[in-house]
Amino acid sequence: MSSEPKSKHIPQATVKRLATYVQVLKNFERDNVEVVSSNPLAEACGVQGSQVRKDLAYFGEFGIRGVGYHVKSLMQSITSSLRVDHEWPMVLVGVGNLGRAMINHINRASSAFTVKAIFDCDPFKIGDIVSGFEVMSPSEIQECVEKMHIDIGIITTRPERAQRACDHLVNAGITAILNFAPARIKVPDTVNVEYVDFFRNLYSLVFDLTQNGRNS
Amino acid sequence: MSSEPKSKHIPQATVKRLATYVQVLKNFERDNVEVVSSNPLAEACGVQGSQVRKDLAYFGEFGIRGVGYHVKSLMQSITSSLRVDHEWPMVLVGVGNLGRAMINHINRASSAFTVKAIFDCDPFKIGDIVSGFEVMSPSEIQECVEKMHIDIGIITTRPERAQRACDHLVNAGITAILNFAPARIKVPDTVNVEYVDFFRNLYSLVFDLTQNGRNS
Repeated sequence: MSSEPKSKHIPQATVKRLATYVQVLKNFERDNVEVVSSNPLAEACGVQGSQVRKDLAYFGEFGIRGVGYHVKSLMQSITSSLRVDHEWPMVLVGVGNLGRAMINHINRASSAFTVKAIFDCDPFKIGDIVSGFEVMSPSEIQECVEKMHIDIGIITTRPERAQRACDHLVNAGITAILNFAPARIKVPDTVNVEYVDFFRNLYSLVFDLTQNGRNS
Repeated sequence: MSSEPKSKHIPQATVKRLATYVQVLKNFERDNVEVVSSNPLAEACGVQGSQVRKDLAYFGEFGIRGVGYHVKSLMQSITSSLRVDHEWPMVLVGVGNLGRAMINHINRASSAFTVKAIFDCDPFKIGDIVSGFEVMSPSEIQECVEKMHIDIGIITTRPERAQRACDHLVNAGITAILNFAPARIKVPDTVNVEYVDFFRNLYSLVFDLTQNGRNS
């Protein structure tokens, strides 16, 4: 069983679904399920069975006809192929409520992604200890990123401070940013940004509620 | 200027982009920008100008040729059309780190969405005061939902408790769920679920990093 993807041209949408498969497989593993076929896996992931089979085909054949997929080895194959079977250290900028929650949440929820250092512009916060980390000045990001070989930065500032946080990260050599701040940020072409904005999801829920004519 | 959408058939993807437009327009307003044309608005939102014009066309003509859109009135038109110009009270289940952060974050970030009551299964947490709210037992969700006319529930439990939280919400009459727990949940067809799972975004960032050959 090879952990190399068959093709390098895996679409981003597939990669995101694979993250969900891993999440669901972890829950199957927790419930002591050893083998799962594509349809129950698909149902648990909220996609079609054909979609699961197509997505997993990027990684070669893992399913055993009439049996299904081995939960543990499928999980390992996906995480190994996507290089999330080892730790990705991260820095976080913005130690407010959201930032504090994210440090705890991410560091507990995943062994692949770990916040290693935290920063804030507020001089009153610098030096505080939060979840075992000392809050540092953004001027120290670069040294930290270089020393710890960090590629990923998380922004949890207020919207009006997001661009400045972003600039600090980019100047320090960060090339991947997860932005929780409710603001769009400008980055060079060499930097990727993913936005997490759950107000988009809330808008979508309200739209469904009102389209159903119950709350207009 | 009518706040009624021209067509009821607005795609979900458009609704989510409209949420981003509102976020960006709010930031323009904060910076005292009164008028913006579609291209700078599009750039700030990370989409094409043609996309913005197409999306806004669902609401009729707001742009003034050679001038652009009035920031404030465009924002009001979108929020009014999507019924997010008034308050949507919400309940939250799971008062751990993530739950606590979300109560503060959501209630401060938005006037349209407000957490009004919070619940946890842990008997040691029930009765605690968190951000001014008393943590209640899930057995009280139904009474609360009926009394406060609540349609939206938020799940911030651990993954293994997400389905139970969901069942409590659905039994209480909730028909729209925002799920932050890293687990898929099963609901009746009458209930809509939106998932917020930023590990999907982290997988995507790592995929880009490794595809670029820098961290394989």
